Amino acid sequence: MSGYISDAVIRRMPAYNRNLRELESEGVQQISSQELGERMGLTPSQIRQDINSIGGVGRQGRGYNVRELREYIRHTMGLDQPHRMVILGAGRIGMAVSHYPNFLREGFVTAGLFDSDPEVVARGSETLPVFAVEEIRERIPDMGADIAVIAVPAEAAQETLDLVYELGIRSAWNFAPVDLRVPADMVVVNVHMSDSLHILTYKMNHREE
Amino acid sequence: MSGYISDAVIRRMPAYNRNLRELESEGVQQISSQELGERMGLTPSQIRQDINSIGGVGRQGRGYNVRELREYIRHTMGLDQPHRMVILGAGRIGMAVSHYPNFLREGFVTAGLFDSDPEVVARGSETLPVFAVEEIRERIPDMGADIAVIAVPAEAAQETLDLVYELGIRSAWNFAPVDLRVPADMVVVNVHMSDSLHILTYKMNHREE
Repeated sequence: MSGYISDAVIRRMPAYNRNLRELESEGVQQISSQELGERMGLTPSQIRQDINSIGGVGRQGRGYNVRELREYIRHTMGLDQPHRMVILGAGRIGMAVSHYPNFLREGFVTAGLFDSDPEVVARGSETLPVFAVEEIRERIPDMGADIAVIAVPAEAAQETLDLVYELGIRSAWNFAPVDLRVPADMVVVNVHMSDSLHILTYKMNHREE
Repeated sequence: MSGYISDAVIRRMPAYNRNLRELESEGVQQISSQELGERMGLTPSQIRQDINSIGGVGRQGRGYNVRELREYIRHTMGLDQPHRMVILGAGRIGMAVSHYPNFLREGFVTAGLFDSDPEVVARGSETLPVFAVEEIRERIPDMGADIAVIAVPAEAAQETLDLVYELGIRSAWNFAPVDLRVPADMVVVNVHMSDSLHILTYKMNHREE
């Protein structure tokens, strides 16, 4: 893999993965940068630059092998290995994440959820264990989780992050609308639910253009 | 506003809005492209290009007025006017969206939810009306909603989109993991829940770099 990959390229990778998966399921074996660009709303030269920058290769005059390129991207993205998530907060967002149908298919297994509300713990979930927050220290070390999903209210997010870090988890997917202080050897990606809604209002506002 | 604004710029606008809101609440009044770039992980020239392309202006040697620039971006994004959402599907995702704390603050009011499961309708929600799917035709025209949130299972998403279109709604925020056929005068933004999770696994995979 070549050295530096820009954030913009990284942010586009999931869309490459999605489009290549769709192409594969449509039975397409080869695709040119022109065709892939039309599908993804990018220029052919942008497509070639992006793929080149992650070290992927096409064939002169034949374009890209769909399956090979998708496998290469999945490998680059760390999606060719399974991941185990532990979900902190079994409220509406935690439950939505734990039951999102695509995650399991993509290799993301939810090991369990934790919640501070005894009623939520008692109610449980159809398919997954919901534990009391008091059991976090005892249970997380044995759960084999590499990703913590932070789905607690904003005011509890920092202490939750600090606790899972202390328990050895080094990656977090944060749904709490707050900027967290993150230890240097931890990676955190924040989900901004509003962002795509704001893109929608932009498009509503510029419909006539 | 200058003519063509690229998709990449549009996709970055919510991050500008967020960062400027934070700066405002920190009491910052002026910011240079250098400082804003450091905060957002962009180069100063990228910042200047982005803001220039939407028609925003800075002052030579003084940078940008935080409040003015944020108001300008909010106006460009259509966020300076209220929006009313109707949510189709009161399952985990519909409920999570309807209770997301930031939306109300940002001017997004949920007018109501609809669901096909009588149990879900009977259970309702603490704060919002949940109606039976049979009442959609009767109720939606009076709800004043300009955005339909599609939070139904993938197999019901297309008929739901077609129905809200027929009832006069021209904008949809789609959570169903499916590509919809969209009428020419409708705008749809798809939420890909997995994308930021995949960016997390990329970062986990390239931690040492």
